Amino acid sequence: MRAAVLTALETVELQERPEPTARPGWVVLTVEAASLCGTDVHQYDGRIDTPFPRVPGHDFSGRVESVGEGVDESWIGKPVAVKPSLPCGDCPECHTDKPFDCKRKKLIGLWSDGCLTEKIAVPVVNLIPRPDGVEPWQASLLEPLAVGLNTVDRLRIILGESVVVLGQGPIGLALTRLCSLSGAGRLIVTDAREAPFAVSRAYGASDCINVLETDATQAVLDLTDGIGADIVIETSGFPASSAMVLDAVRKEGKVAHIGWANDLPPLPVIPIMAKTLTVFGVGGNGGRGQYERALELVRSGRIDLDPMVTHRFSLDDVEEAFATAASKTDGSIKVVVNP
Amino acid sequence: MRAAVLTALETVELQERPEPTARPGWVVLTVEAASLCGTDVHQYDGRIDTPFPRVPGHDFSGRVESVGEGVDESWIGKPVAVKPSLPCGDCPECHTDKPFDCKRKKLIGLWSDGCLTEKIAVPVVNLIPRPDGVEPWQASLLEPLAVGLNTVDRLRIILGESVVVLGQGPIGLALTRLCSLSGAGRLIVTDAREAPFAVSRAYGASDCINVLETDATQAVLDLTDGIGADIVIETSGFPASSAMVLDAVRKEGKVAHIGWANDLPPLPVIPIMAKTLTVFGVGGNGGRGQYERALELVRSGRIDLDPMVTHRFSLDDVEEAFATAASKTDGSIKVVVNP
Amino acid sequence: MRAAVLTALETVELQERPEPTARPGWVVLTVEAASLCGTDVHQYDGRIDTPFPRVPGHDFSGRVESVGEGVDESWIGKPVAVKPSLPCGDCPECHTDKPFDCKRKKLIGLWSDGCLTEKIAVPVVNLIPRPDGVEPWQASLLEPLAVGLNTVDRLRIILGESVVVLGQGPIGLALTRLCSLSGAGRLIVTDAREAPFAVSRAYGASDCINVLETDATQAVLDLTDGIGADIVIETSGFPASSAMVLDAVRKEGKVAHIGWANDLPPLPVIPIMAKTLTVFGVGGNGGRGQYERALELVRSGRIDLDPMVTHRFSLDDVEEAFATAASKTDGSIKVVVNP
Amino acid sequence: MRAAVLTALETVELQERPEPTARPGWVVLTVEAASLCGTDVHQYDGRIDTPFPRVPGHDFSGRVESVGEGVDESWIGKPVAVKPSLPCGDCPECHTDKPFDCKRKKLIGLWSDGCLTEKIAVPVVNLIPRPDGVEPWQASLLEPLAVGLNTVDRLRIILGESVVVLGQGPIGLALTRLCSLSGAGRLIVTDAREAPFAVSRAYGASDCINVLETDATQAVLDLTDGIGADIVIETSGFPASSAMVLDAVRKEGKVAHIGWANDLPPLPVIPIMAKTLTVFGVGGNGGRGQYERALELVRSGRIDLDPMVTHRFSLDDVEEAFATAASKTDGSIKVVVNP
Repeated sequence: MRAAVLTALETVELQERPEPTARPGWVVLTVEAASLCGTDVHQYDGRIDTPFPRVPGHDFSGRVESVGEGVDESWIGKPVAVKPSLPCGDCPECHTDKPFDCKRKKLIGLWSDGCLTEKIAVPVVNLIPRPDGVEPWQASLLEPLAVGLNTVDRLRIILGESVVVLGQGPIGLALTRLCSLSGAGRLIVTDAREAPFAVSRAYGASDCINVLETDATQAVLDLTDGIGADIVIETSGFPASSAMVLDAVRKEGKVAHIGWANDLPPLPVIPIMAKTLTVFGVGGNGGRGQYERALELVRSGRIDLDPMVTHRFSLDDVEEAFATAASKTDGSIKVVVNP
Repeated sequence: MRAAVLTALETVELQERPEPTARPGWVVLTVEAASLCGTDVHQYDGRIDTPFPRVPGHDFSGRVESVGEGVDESWIGKPVAVKPSLPCGDCPECHTDKPFDCKRKKLIGLWSDGCLTEKIAVPVVNLIPRPDGVEPWQASLLEPLAVGLNTVDRLRIILGESVVVLGQGPIGLALTRLCSLSGAGRLIVTDAREAPFAVSRAYGASDCINVLETDATQAVLDLTDGIGADIVIETSGFPASSAMVLDAVRKEGKVAHIGWANDLPPLPVIPIMAKTLTVFGVGGNGGRGQYERALELVRSGRIDLDPMVTHRFSLDDVEEAFATAASKTDGSIKVVVNP
Repeated sequence: MRAAVLTALETVELQERPEPTARPGWVVLTVEAASLCGTDVHQYDGRIDTPFPRVPGHDFSGRVESVGEGVDESWIGKPVAVKPSLPCGDCPECHTDKPFDCKRKKLIGLWSDGCLTEKIAVPVVNLIPRPDGVEPWQASLLEPLAVGLNTVDRLRIILGESVVVLGQGPIGLALTRLCSLSGAGRLIVTDAREAPFAVSRAYGASDCINVLETDATQAVLDLTDGIGADIVIETSGFPASSAMVLDAVRKEGKVAHIGWANDLPPLPVIPIMAKTLTVFGVGGNGGRGQYERALELVRSGRIDLDPMVTHRFSLDDVEEAFATAASKTDGSIKVVVNP
Repeated sequence: MRAAVLTALETVELQERPEPTARPGWVVLTVEAASLCGTDVHQYDGRIDTPFPRVPGHDFSGRVESVGEGVDESWIGKPVAVKPSLPCGDCPECHTDKPFDCKRKKLIGLWSDGCLTEKIAVPVVNLIPRPDGVEPWQASLLEPLAVGLNTVDRLRIILGESVVVLGQGPIGLALTRLCSLSGAGRLIVTDAREAPFAVSRAYGASDCINVLETDATQAVLDLTDGIGADIVIETSGFPASSAMVLDAVRKEGKVAHIGWANDLPPLPVIPIMAKTLTVFGVGGNGGRGQYERALELVRSGRIDLDPMVTHRFSLDDVEEAFATAASKTDGSIKVVVNP
């Protein structure tokens, strides 16, 4: 079968690989759709260290082709989405049948070969049935929604609270929509590109601030009668964005940090105390429940993923897919690859 | 000045009354708009005992005409909404400058003459400034929203939870809209009339059940894969509706009771325990904060009150206003009176 | 091996039974200690229907003797406590490896033969390792603590809140101790017997009210400046106790119902709304976590179970054990049976 | 009357001052007891800038001697504790009768002359009645308890959670006691002195770590099976202590920052995300409610303040009082001054 393989920095090529087989407790899936996320791009551009060669990709959907020993045969033929982190299989939690509590989960496509291929084997516990009415490409875009649900579940937005979402990449856009659905009042978003703002507005943003043109902190204060926003969510991973969080939030407000980068400036402690803030660190895509809820939000039409997908490629064009996602040319937001 | 006066059961008439004056700490308002609520109607039809003669009405907006001693003169001319319960002035809380904590608040229009008149005096602490962009008639419709905010604040809806709102009178409709804004997933509503369902749908209801035609409990179970809704909110005050609450909610679900009537059936304790339920009693319109937030929801367009107002009358036609509200003819939902 | 068997109402006798064997996923335990709870007693006195003959008992500890197929052999010889409800094995949750979410759990000793015997087979997922420093008899008394933890986890006591615990049987006593540990301020308890009050006081109760001598509602009001308690927890299952809950709690207070009986009076809805109450129904002993935390509270000495155990019998004296527990003679609280 | 006056760095002297009079809305108090806190000491040693000359002190109790216009005369003669921050009197909140929401409160003894004198004038809204059974010296020690209550109210300790309190000065000791009362399981405390540990243990600490002798982070990990504590509270204001917070807390744990110093190291963002932490900044002593609850905890004996008071002086010996508090000789924790 064909597989996209990262062989060196900024080098991805199609190779022939043997088809996988299903170990006990695992299944083999036919990949129906995959989407590229920042992690894939950073494996490609070198900001994330990856052992080459490696088949990248972890956010995908497919159909069960065969099952290993101990797996119910009724899975065969079922359409599924896939939780992208594998339990390590080797810790106390894994040994006591609690794989979802595994503290050392390994991301598919980084620690093992991933989904940018025709077929892949995964543990049955990672499958989430894909309901009627959800397309394969939609089910390949769940991770930003799962991360976003983890965030809004902890923020517990009170109806009418003002929210700022810093950064309008896929996770920022997902949070824009999720905060809008969860009762945000004024909903201010920022980005360094104009491209995503049309999506932001469709997702419920009331105010879009281009940080290259406007002092974003001052703009937030102006839009909130000078007191700051009730909630500030940093998704961009840019140092300048992270640095403004504590200034843009009001006294007794809430802050969430999701955007991940090695060069983020640390948070000064005094303003966290002086403003009586609560700071939430959000580090992952949560459990199975978040994926099931994300699927239902898509199925019921509460979240329309279509505006987020700016580019679609076949597996044969995977080089162009990576180049597009990495360069962010053409206002790309999400790139979907169909094997 | 003219005032509507309840003089006997089902009898309301216009009378001349002397204009009020402002005591220390009070203001005199010109009434700009008033709306009739269930309490007014039940004072009129006798289900709520009222000392006659009485000027009814408590949900209104106006403009400050004059101020009493100790009130800042900058209030004069300002447009306001009004919290409708007066502190008793005689309890420990009132004596220690905490009038909003008064445990014996008295509703305007029931315990003292109300707002269906040209001018009325109220304490300055009851005023909430009406912002630009909110019309007087809108500001006379805040009470159902304030009650609804009290409810959703306590329910803390998690994004995607299924919600049932029993009864689609003004409070039920307000809750339909507020739950939709707060992240409800499937949002099922019931009523014994078809009339309000067009508003329900505009407010976000996914399923409207006419209880005269359909077994509502069974319908809720059918719409929730047989497990019941995450949240059930009873606003109708009808015994049959109250009786179905515990059957329609899922295990570990949440229930809110708001609909008030003397003949409500009591709640059996065993299902509350067996299903590990949480039951919230909601008894009032909350504090100043709820009114300010309701105004902002209206101002920002998140809640469009227009569909709720089915009839408008001048003060001269107050008899017809009460007859309309009491008979619920013509599919009346909210009746607004402009002095 | 010997087993206590309920053969008819108020009739329990020792019989010889074959030793159990371990199915796949199950283990065989040597029973080290068991305690009698209200369910056992009501199976004996007929208030709970039981198919006779039946080996009763579900609250116990033991040591793993042998393991079935698929169970790690390192369990053999380990001391354990046991979660007393068995997954049905036949519902969607059980079929998808989520036995703890099974909605139709079956209590050991009621739906299948129980622990008042020398050996018993249970699924490995029901085992909780018993740590050093916890005696077998202590580990046979975890259920009231697990039920109590479920309750205080949901009540979220704020430091200093006044709490009333109605009934001082084992669950009431457990709640007295758990509320004391969780920050209760004034901690008022009631019972119809004087016997448990010495334990109540040792567990942190500030005021003990004998309901046969004192008007308990009035006493609670007197002890709370006339405003009622912040929290009222009903554990007795007595109609008169259940009926006082809404009168003893303050406005905006919290209520928990745990005491289970078929003749409990239903709750009127109006006071729940008028007082803006939150009512929590508590119906079970929760998940594995509650048992682990209960063990740690015992191990660390935060809960001293010794005062609760008023009687100890050997399995040979099981008739006397049941007679004692059922008659509540001699001020019995908890009866422990050692095989 | 006599007053202690800071006239220069490390210089405090007794001076004669005119007696205060009560403005409208204010009262004059006879000071009965005052305690020195870190702020007083830092005004004395220069770490906090103070305009000299200044009468220091803000944590005190007294008795109402006279009242200004508009204040109920029944206050005269009443024993009181005092909230130590004065509303500015000049902001929107102060102008609309919400002085407790004032965003620019000014600490007595820093921004205006304080309580280390015989008489002082304060606004009546700052008074909290001192109940029978609470001594004046106890009521002069409420601020650390109020700060601590603010903290535990936000942390919402779940019964049995492990807690680390870094620093055992007065606020750290207050938190040790409050966490113990609120359900902490293992309760680990640290300090650079041995002196406070006897109090820590009396207050419920299970493990006391001297940071000069032991690697505190490693010790916390050792005491929590290598996973870190559920909750870490930093009260010391020492850089090294602040720096260990994120290492000592477990994944998905909670952190509170209270210790205030200009040289605290900032918090790196990555571990906050990677460990899915929640960080609470605590910046003040809260509202009237915290003082009332602190008084009740003292009155009921749940908190015994006696072990915290290591030194007592008369106002005549105020120099020695400051020298003792500043040098931390003799294991001083709290120094009380009686005028």
